[in-house]
Amino acid sequence: MHIFVTNDDGVTAPGLLALAQAMRALGKVSVLAPDHNWSASGHVKTIERPLRVREVPLADGSQAFTTDGAPSDCVALAVCGFLGEKIDLVVSGINPYANLGHDVTYSGTVTAAMEAAIWGVPAVAFSLDSPNNHLQVLDYAPAAHYAAHIATAVMRNSLPEHTLLNVNIPFLAKEEIKGMRLTRMGLRVYHDKLDQRTDPRGRPYYWIIGDSPTGVPERGSDIGVVSEGYVSITPLQLDLTAYQILPDLSHWVWEQE
Amino acid sequence: MHIFVTNDDGVTAPGLLALAQAMRALGKVSVLAPDHNWSASGHVKTIERPLRVREVPLADGSQAFTTDGAPSDCVALAVCGFLGEKIDLVVSGINPYANLGHDVTYSGTVTAAMEAAIWGVPAVAFSLDSPNNHLQVLDYAPAAHYAAHIATAVMRNSLPEHTLLNVNIPFLAKEEIKGMRLTRMGLRVYHDKLDQRTDPRGRPYYWIIGDSPTGVPERGSDIGVVSEGYVSITPLQLDLTAYQILPDLSHWVWEQE
Repeated sequence: MHIFVTNDDGVTAPGLLALAQAMRALGKVSVLAPDHNWSASGHVKTIERPLRVREVPLADGSQAFTTDGAPSDCVALAVCGFLGEKIDLVVSGINPYANLGHDVTYSGTVTAAMEAAIWGVPAVAFSLDSPNNHLQVLDYAPAAHYAAHIATAVMRNSLPEHTLLNVNIPFLAKEEIKGMRLTRMGLRVYHDKLDQRTDPRGRPYYWIIGDSPTGVPERGSDIGVVSEGYVSITPLQLDLTAYQILPDLSHWVWEQE
Repeated sequence: MHIFVTNDDGVTAPGLLALAQAMRALGKVSVLAPDHNWSASGHVKTIERPLRVREVPLADGSQAFTTDGAPSDCVALAVCGFLGEKIDLVVSGINPYANLGHDVTYSGTVTAAMEAAIWGVPAVAFSLDSPNNHLQVLDYAPAAHYAAHIATAVMRNSLPEHTLLNVNIPFLAKEEIKGMRLTRMGLRVYHDKLDQRTDPRGRPYYWIIGDSPTGVPERGSDIGVVSEGYVSITPLQLDLTAYQILPDLSHWVWEQE
């Protein structure tokens, strides 16, 4: 079993190390991750410039590679043959912050798993719902524990084509986590606003700022179960068609005189 | 009616001008687009650096703004108040190439519309299915004609919350286009591969290359109807949950001893 590990925070991130170490108990592990942070970078395919790859050991001395490409480029490089070996499972993370609700459309962690699903490789994204702007060192051990269980389940069963799993782990001690729940994507609520400033030369510039996103903690949603202390496992699909509104749209008048 | 126009090819792209001109017949138009090409850039939220915005007229002399942010940042800037006025509709494009099937997860054109949907603003992405690597000047008039019809329909009716429309127009003369069809996302087939090269200093670098993506031209899919000469209108949703596989996943053994 050959497991490919990547992330969107960069090859030096402690969450990547925790995930790689957890996966080593399950099979052969290869690591290729970005050389810098790509948070909120979305699904990227780098085609206008070539990519560099270099070897850089993880903090535990194990082999890893890093590239100037995006998380999804790491997956493309790996499945296109950079590793010279077939990949059975792609895992991405462990992201230090949650990827809940609409976050999945921005998330480098999730889009790496999406890229794998496009290539037909089973994939799981892992994120820890830690408080934003923490200064302490995060404990990834509870998340890594669940990552091992979930990766094992994915390898034993088979994920249908063009689907992936998005996993969020509550920021709790292992014994405080209540278990795992299958969920649907919840409703994220963003609080972004513009902060206009003036630079020393008198020209305006704009920060997109705002409090951390919150969400509607509906029962059965990723946001809901994580807030209750469960690990959330959301199956995602690449088909974004809004099938349920097709009948309504068919009654619209589309063409005028 | 206040219509916001953006794209992912940059403020100087002729497809943006064609779309802005078509929208002017329907209401007040504001334009803010990236200062460079963001194709295949995915859904971005720029939070680690501030954004610059400057005024730059379109080729027809009309007012427009440009920013160093991504297409989705343009939408965030606009809905967060940069324009100082409520926006009723966001349109993105006209992209010179199709955004069919899984392209929507990479597409800056589509993720701009996605960002609008997250903010609760109706949005439509427009793309022209032109042959790749063309050298001639593209005729956007047929696409702009349909963009006006579709934008009118969206404003007359109402798109359900958290949905958007992805529109692809065949590369045909106006009289050759057979009409419009509501579709589902089809299956895109990518032909990416790695091209490893060695730089003048003897170090390797990698291009992600390959022939243009093709697709399975299934009946009723975006890929299918565009190949038959119809304009494809696909409703997309922000909820990526793979509801249909939840029952199967509930039978998996998730936790081992």
